[in-house]
Amino acid sequence: MRDVSIIGIGQTAVGEHWGRSIRDLAVEAIQKARQDAGVERLDALYVGNMLSGELAGQENLAAAVADAAGVLPIEAIKIESACASGGAVVRAACLAVASGEREAVLAVGVEKMTDLLTDGVTSALALAADADYEAGHGVSFVALNAMLMRRYMHDFKARHEEFAPFSVNSHRNAARNPHAMYRQEITVDDFVRSPIVADPINILDSAGICDGAAAVLIVPSSEAMRTRRPPVRVAASVCATDTIGLAERRDPLVWQAVADSARLAYRKAQIGPKEIDFFEIHDAFTIVSVLCLEACGFADRGSALKLAAEGRIALEGDLPICTLGGLKGRGHPVGASGTYQIVEAVQQLRGEAGPAQVKGAKIGMAQSVGGSGSVAVTHILQT
Amino acid sequence: MRDVSIIGIGQTAVGEHWGRSIRDLAVEAIQKARQDAGVERLDALYVGNMLSGELAGQENLAAAVADAAGVLPIEAIKIESACASGGAVVRAACLAVASGEREAVLAVGVEKMTDLLTDGVTSALALAADADYEAGHGVSFVALNAMLMRRYMHDFKARHEEFAPFSVNSHRNAARNPHAMYRQEITVDDFVRSPIVADPINILDSAGICDGAAAVLIVPSSEAMRTRRPPVRVAASVCATDTIGLAERRDPLVWQAVADSARLAYRKAQIGPKEIDFFEIHDAFTIVSVLCLEACGFADRGSALKLAAEGRIALEGDLPICTLGGLKGRGHPVGASGTYQIVEAVQQLRGEAGPAQVKGAKIGMAQSVGGSGSVAVTHILQT
Repeated sequence: MRDVSIIGIGQTAVGEHWGRSIRDLAVEAIQKARQDAGVERLDALYVGNMLSGELAGQENLAAAVADAAGVLPIEAIKIESACASGGAVVRAACLAVASGEREAVLAVGVEKMTDLLTDGVTSALALAADADYEAGHGVSFVALNAMLMRRYMHDFKARHEEFAPFSVNSHRNAARNPHAMYRQEITVDDFVRSPIVADPINILDSAGICDGAAAVLIVPSSEAMRTRRPPVRVAASVCATDTIGLAERRDPLVWQAVADSARLAYRKAQIGPKEIDFFEIHDAFTIVSVLCLEACGFADRGSALKLAAEGRIALEGDLPICTLGGLKGRGHPVGASGTYQIVEAVQQLRGEAGPAQVKGAKIGMAQSVGGSGSVAVTHILQT
Repeated sequence: MRDVSIIGIGQTAVGEHWGRSIRDLAVEAIQKARQDAGVERLDALYVGNMLSGELAGQENLAAAVADAAGVLPIEAIKIESACASGGAVVRAACLAVASGEREAVLAVGVEKMTDLLTDGVTSALALAADADYEAGHGVSFVALNAMLMRRYMHDFKARHEEFAPFSVNSHRNAARNPHAMYRQEITVDDFVRSPIVADPINILDSAGICDGAAAVLIVPSSEAMRTRRPPVRVAASVCATDTIGLAERRDPLVWQAVADSARLAYRKAQIGPKEIDFFEIHDAFTIVSVLCLEACGFADRGSALKLAAEGRIALEGDLPICTLGGLKGRGHPVGASGTYQIVEAVQQLRGEAGPAQVKGAKIGMAQSVGGSGSVAVTHILQT
């Protein structure tokens, strides 16, 4: 298979775009990515999205976006993998180019969530859980994560405020990202006093509901050298799955799909976790950051909180995470978040992350997780 | 890129499966396809589906199906392209194997539509239309097709009963297919007296709402020779798009995405329409069969009704269509229909279509259309 690279990136500001449609957001990211790449050719458009049917009243989203972007009669399909849709769409684009049939494929992740009241969105997000054995009984997505957090606190004798550094870090980095939704720094005190959503998860444990779109243009690495922007090579692109229901797992605190996708990505890229310069992590809730760090080999079981407490996850640490704000600080437009992570990783690897730049970043990892860890898509990118 | 072939097929009976879940249907098709192939290896599972979120309360469907099928921790993603999802998922699986990264990929199309009342399903299907400029104004999917049919009847001075042979043909063939939903033959008289749905479209112009799943296993052609079943080569797999809204088209009776996908498929397979032995057409409504036959070069504009009137579309004709009942006779579980078409094409090319067998079939075409012709996926298969 052919080696592939990212030669263009684009993103909208993340926020509450009440005056704009889902296709409008997607088109902005697409145009910016194409402009950034400076390449005319486009062979296919893949759209990553979770909830366009439920929240934007539009399925057949890929055709709608291709039409609005003025790229007809191009091939266009939508990829859905719950909150991992934005990672999965980049993987699909990589495979299409790797196949040799396509020379330039654009992956765009997009979500429009703020046109409904919050309880409508909460119901829609529960579609990522097991319809028959979880959501059907009324459990929401934050409730599932609250059970995980409570169990983690019990098993590893952790206090809730020990999760604060993850949220503080994401907000600190988001303050340096002009595209982020929550550009204000927060303190541990803010975190502790934040209102409960589903005990023990509070507002500042949780990524916000928002709108946004991000896009990347993928070409064969052999062609990438000739383009005007510094290409970023996709060293690994892996998807793995676990049970859809939390109750089916031997140990709910072991996120096996995350572990499997990371392990296979390391093998593909021929590196280990120590060689990762920064990690765009799926911090939908602080507990998710903890479970992913442990599953990916950055911390032993029960010890990821220590990693955060020691400041190692900060931009200046040895494992910066959520360098441009992560899902918590930048915002979490669910089907777009995985693509934002990859756009941000490219910004870091190009040295274009501005005040959030990780010095000397050469290898970055971006990981998008869907459901309660039921699907994970891991990319390793390098200059 | 690598040449790919289909070595296993599976399908559920199409019908109203009130007692079964969407994942249960998918699993049956998956298991049958794997059993048919007699190959253990499976590297990825792609799920084609349009409405699982709206009608089955389950997004993250690919992880849910992978879990239920017992194939964790395999890669799994969902592909959505409205009513073309079942074709698009096969194309995605072909690309994954063509890339060289995957050796055995299963594509399953699945839809569960009968758990809601019909008006709920009608609203859900309208998500394939333009949310802002069509569905938002209350037009249903059958209404859009009714406008097309009325326009066709006006432009080409056609009478409604001239569309009857398409429905009669699909029912006649469905009667020979044990998996079909409507296994009763109908007459032109039945057609004419059938109740109106949206004038001029009547019940017997329209494919039914139903449940079903179909699956194919795809491997490199170089490996396909070693398997126990006669392999069927994917000679072409193409996706193209057109405007999402009908009103945006210069001529709504020219289905450009259908024409483009067929033209590119012919070029890829290095054949012309004359060499196609049978055509699994997207007969969601009789007018769609007409527009697709004309767009694909089987009839000049305004003359597809003649093709049907002359009996050329029958099993014994020179261009058999909907050989196992098509969407009208077999049933149209929307996100699964495109995969059913490919499964049925494989049955024909293997010579396993029983009383519906097209004699000497060597090259078959299957075409899945989404929205009002806004996306089309065309496959050419050969022995």
